[in-house]
Amino acid sequence: MTAPATPAYRRLSVEERRAQLLDAALTLFAHRAPEEVSLDDVAAAAGVSRPLVYRYFRGGKQELYEAALRSAADELERCFTEPQAGPPTERLGRVLDRYLAFVDQHDAGFSALLQGGSVCETSRTTAIVDEVRRAAAGQILRHIGTGRTAQDPPGARLRMMVRTWIAAVESASLIWLDEGKRPPAGELRDWLVDHLIALLVATAATDEETAGAVDALVSQERVDGPVATLARRVAPRVGGAAHLL
Amino acid sequence: MTAPATPAYRRLSVEERRAQLLDAALTLFAHRAPEEVSLDDVAAAAGVSRPLVYRYFRGGKQELYEAALRSAADELERCFTEPQAGPPTERLGRVLDRYLAFVDQHDAGFSALLQGGSVCETSRTTAIVDEVRRAAAGQILRHIGTGRTAQDPPGARLRMMVRTWIAAVESASLIWLDEGKRPPAGELRDWLVDHLIALLVATAATDEETAGAVDALVSQERVDGPVATLARRVAPRVGGAAHLL
Repeated sequence: MTAPATPAYRRLSVEERRAQLLDAALTLFAHRAPEEVSLDDVAAAAGVSRPLVYRYFRGGKQELYEAALRSAADELERCFTEPQAGPPTERLGRVLDRYLAFVDQHDAGFSALLQGGSVCETSRTTAIVDEVRRAAAGQILRHIGTGRTAQDPPGARLRMMVRTWIAAVESASLIWLDEGKRPPAGELRDWLVDHLIALLVATAATDEETAGAVDALVSQERVDGPVATLARRVAPRVGGAAHLL
Repeated sequence: MTAPATPAYRRLSVEERRAQLLDAALTLFAHRAPEEVSLDDVAAAAGVSRPLVYRYFRGGKQELYEAALRSAADELERCFTEPQAGPPTERLGRVLDRYLAFVDQHDAGFSALLQGGSVCETSRTTAIVDEVRRAAAGQILRHIGTGRTAQDPPGARLRMMVRTWIAAVESASLIWLDEGKRPPAGELRDWLVDHLIALLVATAATDEETAGAVDALVSQERVDGPVATLARRVAPRVGGAAHLL
Protein backbone atom coordinates (compact mmCIF):
# COMPACT_ATOMS: atom_id res chain seq x y z
CA MET A 1 0.00 0.00 0.00
CA THR A 2 1.41 3.40 -0.94
CA ALA A 3 0.93 6.53 1.14
CA PRO A 4 -1.64 8.97 -0.28
CA ALA A 5 0.03 11.54 -2.49
CA THR A 6 0.53 14.92 -0.87
CA PRO A 7 -2.16 17.16 -2.34
CA ALA A 8 -0.66 19.79 -4.63
CA TYR A 9 -2.96 22.35 -3.10
CA ARG A 10 -4.43 22.43 0.38
CA ARG A 11 -7.12 24.88 1.30
CA LEU A 12 -5.72 27.03 4.11
CA SER A 13 -7.86 28.51 6.83
CA VAL A 14 -8.30 32.29 6.77
CA GLU A 15 -5.79 32.67 9.58
CA GLU A 16 -3.27 30.32 7.95
CA ARG A 17 -3.52 32.12 4.64
CA ARG A 18 -3.11 35.51 6.27
CA ALA A 19 -0.07 34.27 8.18
CA GLN A 20 1.41 32.81 5.00
CA LEU A 21 1.00 36.08 3.07
CA LEU A 22 2.39 38.09 5.97
CA ASP A 23 5.36 35.76 6.19
CA ALA A 24 6.10 36.22 2.48
CA ALA A 25 5.76 40.01 2.87
CA LEU A 26 8.04 40.07 5.93
CA THR A 27 10.80 38.25 4.06
CA LEU A 28 10.52 40.63 1.10
CA PHE A 29 10.31 43.82 3.19
CA ALA A 30 13.26 42.66 5.34
CA HIS A 31 15.70 42.62 2.46
CA ARG A 32 14.42 45.40 0.19
CA ALA A 33 13.26 48.98 0.56
CA PRO A 34 9.42 49.10 0.49
CA GLU A 35 9.58 50.91 -2.87
CA GLU A 36 11.21 47.82 -4.31
CA VAL A 37 8.50 45.39 -3.21
CA SER A 38 5.30 45.07 -5.27
CA LEU A 39 2.09 43.20 -4.50
CA ASP A 40 2.99 40.92 -7.42
CA ASP A 41 6.23 40.05 -5.63
CA VAL A 42 4.31 39.12 -2.49
CA ALA A 43 1.80 37.06 -4.49
CA ALA A 44 4.62 35.26 -6.32
CA ALA A 45 6.57 34.59 -3.11
CA ALA A 46 3.44 33.13 -1.49
CA GLY A 47 2.52 31.19 -4.66
CA VAL A 48 -0.90 32.81 -4.92
CA SER A 49 -2.66 35.27 -7.23
CA ARG A 50 -2.57 39.02 -6.79
CA PRO A 51 -6.38 39.24 -6.26
CA LEU A 52 -6.02 36.74 -3.40
CA VAL A 53 -3.51 39.04 -1.67
CA TYR A 54 -6.01 41.89 -2.05
CA ARG A 55 -8.76 39.75 -0.57
CA TYR A 56 -6.74 39.42 2.65
CA PHE A 57 -5.16 42.86 2.64
CA ARG A 58 -7.68 45.26 1.16
CA GLY A 59 -5.35 48.18 1.85
CA GLY A 60 -2.86 46.57 -0.56
CA LYS A 61 0.86 47.09 -0.16
CA GLN A 62 0.59 49.78 2.52
CA GLU A 63 -1.50 47.50 4.73
CA LEU A 64 0.86 44.58 4.15
CA TYR A 65 3.86 46.79 4.94
CA GLU A 66 2.32 48.00 8.19
CA ALA A 67 1.32 44.45 9.20
CA ALA A 68 4.86 43.21 8.46
CA LEU A 69 6.32 46.12 10.44
CA ARG A 70 3.99 45.37 13.37
CA SER A 71 5.14 41.74 13.33
CA ALA A 72 8.84 42.71 13.13
CA ALA A 73 8.37 45.23 15.96
CA ASP A 74 6.87 42.53 18.19
CA GLU A 75 9.81 40.25 17.40
CA LEU A 76 12.28 43.02 18.21
CA GLU A 77 10.57 43.85 21.49
CA ARG A 78 10.88 40.20 22.52
CA CYS A 79 14.68 40.50 21.96
CA PHE A 80 14.88 43.10 24.72
CA THR A 81 13.58 40.81 27.47
CA GLU A 82 16.39 39.54 29.68
CA PRO A 83 16.30 38.12 33.24
CA GLN A 84 17.56 40.46 35.95
CA ALA A 85 20.37 38.16 37.04
CA GLY A 86 24.14 38.18 36.63
CA PRO A 87 26.47 41.08 35.80
CA PRO A 88 24.46 43.87 34.12
CA THR A 89 26.95 44.28 31.24
CA GLU A 90 26.55 40.56 30.42
CA ARG A 91 22.77 41.00 30.26
CA LEU A 92 23.26 44.03 28.02
CA GLY A 93 25.66 42.07 25.79
CA ARG A 94 23.08 39.29 25.29
CA VAL A 95 20.34 41.79 24.39
CA LEU A 96 22.67 43.53 21.94
CA ASP A 97 23.60 40.18 20.36
CA ARG A 98 19.92 39.45 19.72
CA TYR A 99 19.32 43.02 18.49
CA LEU A 100 22.25 42.92 16.06
CA ALA A 101 21.10 39.50 14.78
CA PHE A 102 17.71 41.11 14.09
CA VAL A 103 19.39 44.03 12.28
CA ASP A 104 21.44 41.53 10.27
CA GLN A 105 18.30 39.59 9.27
CA HIS A 106 16.27 42.67 8.31
CA ASP A 107 19.08 44.68 6.78
CA ALA A 108 17.67 46.60 3.82
CA GLY A 109 14.22 46.93 5.38
CA PHE A 110 15.74 48.18 8.65
CA SER A 111 17.80 50.81 6.81
CA ALA A 112 14.89 51.97 4.66
CA LEU A 113 12.61 52.27 7.68
CA LEU A 114 15.03 54.23 9.87
CA GLN A 115 16.57 56.38 7.17
CA GLY A 116 13.15 57.83 6.41
CA GLY A 117 11.82 59.33 3.21
CA SER A 118 10.03 56.14 2.16
CA VAL A 119 6.61 56.45 0.51
CA CYS A 120 5.36 53.80 2.97
CA GLU A 121 6.30 55.94 5.98
CA THR A 122 3.26 57.35 7.76
CA SER A 123 2.41 58.57 11.23
CA ARG A 124 1.36 54.96 11.94
CA THR A 125 4.74 53.49 10.98
CA THR A 126 6.67 56.12 12.95
CA ALA A 127 4.39 55.38 15.94
CA ILE A 128 5.38 51.69 15.74
CA VAL A 129 9.08 52.59 15.63
CA ASP A 130 8.65 54.93 18.60
CA GLU A 131 6.87 52.20 20.54
CA VAL A 132 9.88 49.89 20.01
CA ARG A 133 12.21 52.65 21.24
CA ARG A 134 10.07 53.16 24.33
CA ALA A 135 10.07 49.40 25.00
CA ALA A 136 13.87 49.34 24.73
CA ALA A 137 14.22 52.30 27.10
CA GLY A 138 11.79 50.68 29.55
CA GLN A 139 13.80 47.46 29.64
CA ILE A 140 17.11 49.25 30.16
CA LEU A 141 15.68 51.37 32.97
CA ARG A 142 14.34 48.19 34.58
CA HIS A 143 17.87 46.75 34.66
CA ILE A 144 19.43 50.00 35.82
CA GLY A 145 16.89 49.47 38.57
CA THR A 146 16.78 52.64 40.63
CA GLY A 147 13.77 51.14 42.43
CA ARG A 148 11.51 53.64 40.65
CA THR A 149 8.13 52.46 39.39
CA ALA A 150 5.74 53.54 36.65
CA GLN A 151 4.06 55.78 39.24
CA ASP A 152 7.39 57.24 40.30
CA PRO A 153 9.49 57.10 37.11
CA PRO A 154 13.28 57.62 36.93
CA GLY A 155 14.53 61.20 36.70
CA ALA A 156 14.73 63.22 33.50
CA ARG A 157 18.51 63.01 33.15
CA LEU A 158 18.64 59.22 33.46
CA ARG A 159 15.77 58.82 30.98
CA MET A 160 17.42 61.20 28.53
CA MET A 161 20.68 59.29 28.88
CA VAL A 162 19.04 55.97 28.05
CA ARG A 163 17.09 57.40 25.10
CA THR A 164 20.14 59.08 23.59
CA TRP A 165 22.14 55.85 23.92
CA ILE A 166 19.35 54.01 22.06
CA ALA A 167 19.56 56.65 19.30
CA ALA A 168 23.32 56.08 19.17
CA VAL A 169 22.77 52.30 18.86
CA GLU A 170 20.32 52.83 15.98
CA SER A 171 22.77 55.13 14.26
CA ALA A 172 25.62 52.64 14.77
CA SER A 173 23.42 49.87 13.30
CA LEU A 174 22.72 51.91 10.16
CA ILE A 175 26.42 52.71 9.73
CA TRP A 176 27.22 49.03 10.31
CA LEU A 177 24.80 47.96 7.52
CA ASP A 178 26.08 50.74 5.29
CA GLU A 179 29.66 49.53 5.74
CA GLY A 180 28.87 45.94 4.74
CA LYS A 181 28.34 44.72 8.34
CA ARG A 182 31.84 45.71 9.41
CA PRO A 183 33.26 45.47 12.09
CA PRO A 184 32.07 41.96 13.14
CA ALA A 185 28.88 42.13 15.23
CA GLY A 186 30.70 41.02 18.40
CA GLU A 187 33.14 43.92 18.14
CA LEU A 188 30.31 46.41 17.58
CA ARG A 189 28.46 44.93 20.59
CA ASP A 190 31.51 45.37 22.85
CA TRP A 191 31.91 48.99 21.75
CA LEU A 192 28.22 49.72 22.36
CA VAL A 193 28.53 48.22 25.87
CA ASP A 194 31.61 50.43 26.51
CA HIS A 195 29.60 53.38 25.17
CA LEU A 196 26.83 52.86 27.73
CA ILE A 197 29.31 52.33 30.60
CA ALA A 198 31.08 55.60 29.68
CA LEU A 199 27.80 57.46 29.38
CA LEU A 200 26.55 56.15 32.72
CA VAL A 201 29.77 57.20 34.46
CA ALA A 202 29.79 60.65 32.80
CA THR A 203 26.11 61.21 33.69
CA ALA A 204 26.74 60.03 37.26
CA ALA A 205 29.20 62.94 37.55
CA THR A 206 26.33 65.44 37.64
CA ASP A 207 23.24 63.36 38.47
CA GLU A 208 22.83 61.79 41.92
CA GLU A 209 20.26 59.20 40.86
CA THR A 210 22.56 57.93 38.09
CA ALA A 211 25.49 57.92 40.54
CA GLY A 212 23.56 55.63 42.90
CA ALA A 213 22.58 53.37 40.01
CA VAL A 214 26.18 53.16 38.77
CA ASP A 215 27.50 52.13 42.19
CA ALA A 216 24.82 49.41 42.43
CA LEU A 217 25.52 48.16 38.89
CA VAL A 218 29.30 48.15 39.31
CA SER A 219 29.02 46.08 42.51
CA GLN A 220 27.52 43.27 40.38
CA GLU A 221 30.31 43.27 37.77
CA ARG A 222 33.11 40.68 37.46
CA VAL A 223 36.87 41.38 37.59
CA ASP A 224 37.19 40.10 34.01
CA GLY A 225 34.01 41.85 32.78
CA PRO A 226 33.60 44.89 30.51
CA VAL A 227 33.63 47.51 33.29
CA ALA A 228 36.92 46.26 34.76
CA THR A 229 38.47 45.83 31.30
CA LEU A 230 37.45 49.32 30.23
CA ALA A 231 38.77 50.83 33.48
CA ARG A 232 42.16 49.15 32.96
CA ARG A 233 42.33 50.32 29.35
CA VAL A 234 41.37 53.89 30.20
CA ALA A 235 44.10 54.15 32.87
CA PRO A 236 46.95 54.98 30.40
CA ARG A 237 44.98 58.05 29.21
CA VAL A 238 45.12 59.47 32.74
CA GLY A 239 48.87 59.99 32.30
CA GLY A 240 48.14 62.35 29.41
CA ALA A 241 45.77 64.31 31.65
CA ALA A 242 48.23 64.66 34.58
CA HIS A 243 48.36 68.46 34.13
CA LEU A 244 44.61 68.62 34.77
CA LEU A 245 44.48 66.55 37.97
CA MET B 1 7.96 120.81 4.09
CA THR B 2 6.68 117.33 5.03
CA ALA B 3 8.46 114.13 4.09
CA PRO B 4 6.89 112.21 1.22
CA ALA B 5 4.43 109.59 2.49
CA THR B 6 5.83 106.03 2.54
CA PRO B 7 4.24 104.26 -0.43
CA ALA B 8 1.72 101.66 0.72
CA TYR B 9 3.03 99.27 -1.89
CA ARG B 10 6.47 99.05 -3.45
CA ARG B 11 7.11 96.78 -6.39
CA LEU B 12 9.76 94.26 -5.29
CA SER B 13 12.28 92.73 -7.66
CA VAL B 14 11.87 89.03 -8.46
CA GLU B 15 14.70 88.17 -6.08
CA GLU B 16 13.35 90.37 -3.31
CA ARG B 17 9.86 88.91 -3.63
CA ARG B 18 11.21 85.36 -3.61
CA ALA B 19 13.29 86.12 -0.51
CA GLN B 20 10.28 87.70 1.20
CA LEU B 21 8.06 84.66 0.52
CA LEU B 22 10.79 82.27 1.62
CA ASP B 23 11.27 84.26 4.79
CA ALA B 24 7.55 84.06 5.60
CA ALA B 25 7.59 80.31 4.88
CA LEU B 26 10.68 79.78 7.05
CA THR B 27 9.04 81.46 10.03
CA LEU B 28 5.87 79.38 9.61
CA PHE B 29 7.65 76.07 9.03
CA ALA B 30 9.95 76.74 12.00
CA HIS B 31 7.13 76.81 14.51
CA ARG B 32 4.59 74.38 13.05
CA ALA B 33 4.61 70.90 11.54
CA PRO B 34 4.46 71.17 7.72
CA GLU B 35 0.96 69.65 7.79
CA GLU B 36 -0.18 72.69 9.74
CA VAL B 37 1.11 75.27 7.25
CA SER B 38 -0.99 76.08 4.16
CA LEU B 39 -0.12 78.18 1.12
CA ASP B 40 -2.79 80.61 2.32
CA ASP B 41 -0.86 81.00 5.59
CA VAL B 42 2.31 81.83 3.66
CA ALA B 43 0.46 84.30 1.44
CA ALA B 44 -1.15 85.96 4.48
CA ALA B 45 2.16 86.15 6.37
CA ALA B 46 3.83 87.77 3.36
CA GLY B 47 0.83 90.06 2.72
CA VAL B 48 0.37 88.82 -0.84
CA SER B 49 -2.20 86.76 -2.74
CA ARG B 50 -2.11 82.98 -3.03
CA PRO B 51 -1.68 83.10 -6.85
CA LEU B 52 1.40 85.30 -6.34
CA VAL B 53 2.95 82.61 -4.11
CA TYR B 54 2.28 80.06 -6.87
CA ARG B 55 3.89 82.34 -9.44
CA TYR B 56 7.16 82.19 -7.48
CA PHE B 57 6.88 78.61 -6.24
CA ARG B 58 5.14 76.62 -8.94
CA GLY B 59 5.59 73.41 -6.93
CA GLY B 60 3.40 74.96 -4.23
CA LYS B 61 3.81 74.05 -0.60
CA GLN B 62 6.23 71.16 -1.20
CA GLU B 63 8.59 73.44 -3.15
CA LEU B 64 8.34 76.16 -0.48
CA TYR B 65 8.98 73.59 2.26
CA GLU B 66 12.07 72.26 0.52
CA ALA B 67 13.38 75.78 -0.16
CA ALA B 68 12.84 76.72 3.50
CA LEU B 69 14.58 73.50 4.62
CA ARG B 70 17.51 74.21 2.27
CA SER B 71 17.84 77.69 3.77
CA ALA B 72 17.61 76.40 7.37
CA ALA B 73 20.19 73.69 6.59
CA ASP B 74 22.63 76.31 5.27
CA GLU B 75 22.13 78.36 8.44
CA LEU B 76 22.72 75.30 10.63
CA GLU B 77 25.86 74.33 8.75
CA ARG B 78 27.26 77.83 9.38
CA CYS B 79 26.72 77.22 13.14
CA PHE B 80 29.23 74.37 13.01
CA THR B 81 32.16 76.51 11.87
CA GLU B 82 34.54 77.29 14.70
CA PRO B 83 38.21 78.38 14.65
CA GLN B 84 40.71 75.71 15.63
CA ALA B 85 42.06 77.60 18.61
CA GLY B 86 41.72 77.27 22.37
CA PRO B 87 40.66 74.27 24.45
CA PRO B 88 38.70 71.84 22.23
CA THR B 89 35.84 71.46 24.74
CA GLU B 90 35.35 75.27 24.72
CA ARG B 91 35.09 75.20 20.92
CA LEU B 92 32.57 72.35 21.19
CA GLY B 93 30.61 74.28 23.81
CA ARG B 94 30.32 77.32 21.52
CA VAL B 95 29.14 75.18 18.58
CA LEU B 96 26.56 73.45 20.81
CA ASP B 97 25.33 76.84 22.09
CA ARG B 98 24.70 77.97 18.51
CA TYR B 99 23.14 74.62 17.62
CA LEU B 100 20.77 74.65 20.62
CA ALA B 101 19.79 78.27 19.82
CA PHE B 102 18.89 77.06 16.31
CA VAL B 103 16.85 74.18 17.76
CA ASP B 104 15.13 76.64 20.10
CA GLN B 105 14.27 78.95 17.18
CA HIS B 106 12.98 76.18 14.90
CA ASP B 107 11.31 74.06 17.57
CA ALA B 108 8.16 72.56 16.05
CA GLY B 109 9.61 72.40 12.53
CA PHE B 110 12.78 70.73 13.85
CA SER B 111 10.73 68.09 15.71
CA ALA B 112 8.43 67.42 12.75
CA LEU B 113 11.38 67.06 10.39
CA LEU B 114 13.41 64.70 12.54
CA GLN B 115 10.55 62.66 13.94
CA GLY B 116 9.59 61.61 10.43
CA GLY B 117 6.25 60.55 9.04
CA SER B 118 5.46 63.99 7.59
CA VAL B 119 3.74 64.16 4.21
CA CYS B 120 6.39 66.69 3.14
CA GLU B 121 9.21 64.20 3.79
CA THR B 122 10.78 62.94 0.58
CA SER B 123 14.09 61.47 -0.48
CA ARG B 124 15.14 65.09 -1.21
CA THR B 125 14.38 66.32 2.32
CA THR B 126 16.13 63.33 3.94
CA ALA B 127 19.13 64.00 1.67
CA ILE B 128 19.31 67.59 3.00
CA VAL B 129 19.17 66.34 6.61
CA ASP B 130 21.90 63.79 5.88
CA GLU B 131 24.06 66.49 4.31
CA VAL B 132 23.81 68.54 7.54
CA ARG B 133 24.80 65.48 9.56
CA ARG B 134 27.80 64.90 7.30
CA ALA B 135 28.82 68.56 7.63
CA ALA B 136 28.63 68.28 11.43
CA ALA B 137 30.72 65.10 11.44
CA GLY B 138 33.28 66.69 9.11
CA GLN B 139 33.69 69.71 11.40
CA ILE B 140 34.10 67.57 14.53
CA LEU B 141 36.66 65.34 12.83
CA ARG B 142 38.54 68.47 11.74
CA HIS B 143 38.85 69.56 15.38
CA ILE B 144 39.69 66.07 16.61
CA GLY B 145 42.43 66.56 14.03
CA THR B 146 44.19 63.26 13.58
CA GLY B 147 46.05 64.85 10.68
CA ARG B 148 44.04 62.77 8.25
CA THR B 149 42.83 64.34 4.99
CA ALA B 150 39.97 63.73 2.59
CA GLN B 151 42.29 61.43 0.67
CA ASP B 152 43.24 59.57 3.85
CA PRO B 153 40.13 59.83 6.04
CA PRO B 154 39.97 58.99 9.75
CA GLY B 155 39.44 55.35 10.67
CA ALA B 156 36.07 53.62 10.77
CA ARG B 157 35.80 53.52 14.57
CA LEU B 158 36.47 57.23 15.03
CA ARG B 159 33.99 58.12 12.27
CA MET B 160 31.35 55.83 13.77
CA MET B 161 31.94 57.39 17.19
CA VAL B 162 31.39 60.92 15.87
CA ARG B 163 28.29 59.96 13.88
CA THR B 164 26.68 58.13 16.80
CA TRP B 165 27.35 61.11 19.08
CA ILE B 166 25.63 63.38 16.53
CA ALA B 167 22.63 61.00 16.57
CA ALA B 168 22.63 61.22 20.38
CA VAL B 169 22.68 65.05 20.18
CA GLU B 170 19.71 65.03 17.77
CA SER B 171 17.83 62.68 20.04
CA ALA B 172 18.62 64.81 23.10
CA SER B 173 17.39 67.91 21.22
CA LEU B 174 14.05 66.26 20.40
CA ILE B 175 13.60 65.14 24.02
CA TRP B 176 14.54 68.67 25.15
CA LEU B 177 11.84 70.20 22.91
CA ASP B 178 9.36 67.53 23.99
CA GLU B 179 9.99 68.36 27.65
CA GLY B 180 9.33 72.09 27.23
CA LYS B 181 13.02 73.02 26.72
CA ARG B 182 14.06 71.58 30.09
CA PRO B 183 16.77 71.45 31.44
CA PRO B 184 18.12 74.95 30.55
CA ALA B 185 20.13 74.88 27.31
CA GLY B 186 23.42 75.51 29.15
CA GLU B 187 22.94 72.43 31.30
CA LEU B 188 22.11 70.29 28.26
CA ARG B 189 25.21 71.64 26.48
CA ASP B 190 27.46 70.70 29.41
CA TRP B 191 26.03 67.19 29.52
CA LEU B 192 26.51 66.78 25.74
CA VAL B 193 30.14 67.90 26.11
CA ASP B 194 30.62 65.36 28.95
CA HIS B 195 28.97 62.76 26.71
CA LEU B 196 31.52 63.31 23.94
CA ILE B 197 34.47 63.33 26.36
CA ALA B 198 33.27 60.01 27.86
CA LEU B 199 32.73 58.50 24.42
CA LEU B 200 36.17 59.61 23.20
CA VAL B 201 37.86 58.10 26.26
CA ALA B 202 35.88 54.83 26.01
CA THR B 203 36.63 54.55 22.28
CA ALA B 204 40.32 55.33 22.91
CA ALA B 205 40.37 52.17 25.07
CA THR B 206 40.17 49.96 21.99
CA ASP B 207 41.15 52.25 19.09
CA GLU B 208 44.70 53.49 18.72
CA GLU B 209 43.85 56.42 16.44
CA THR B 210 41.27 57.71 18.94
CA ALA B 211 43.75 57.22 21.79
CA GLY B 212 46.28 59.44 20.00
CA ALA B 213 43.61 62.05 19.32
CA VAL B 214 42.46 62.05 22.95
CA ASP B 215 45.99 62.62 24.26
CA ALA B 216 46.44 65.54 21.84
CA LEU B 217 43.04 67.06 22.76
CA VAL B 218 43.54 66.66 26.50
CA SER B 219 46.91 68.42 26.32
CA GLN B 220 45.04 71.58 25.17
CA GLU B 221 42.51 71.55 28.03
CA ARG B 222 42.50 73.88 31.07
CA VAL B 223 42.61 72.81 34.74
CA ASP B 224 39.18 74.37 35.27
CA GLY B 225 37.73 73.05 31.98
CA PRO B 226 35.16 70.30 31.35
CA VAL B 227 37.70 67.44 31.05
CA ALA B 228 39.34 68.22 34.41
CA THR B 229 35.96 68.82 36.08
CA LEU B 230 34.54 65.57 34.75
CA ALA B 231 37.64 63.63 35.85
CA ARG B 232 37.38 65.03 39.39
CA ARG B 233 33.66 64.20 39.56
CA VAL B 234 34.15 60.66 38.24
CA ALA B 235 36.82 59.89 40.86
CA PRO B 236 34.35 59.03 43.68
CA ARG B 237 32.84 56.29 41.49
CA VAL B 238 36.22 54.54 41.40
CA GLY B 239 35.77 53.71 45.10
CA GLY B 240 32.67 51.70 44.21
CA ALA B 241 34.68 49.79 41.60
CA ALA B 242 37.60 48.94 43.94
CA HIS B 243 36.81 45.20 43.74
CA LEU B 244 37.35 45.34 39.97
CA LEU B 245 40.72 47.09 39.96
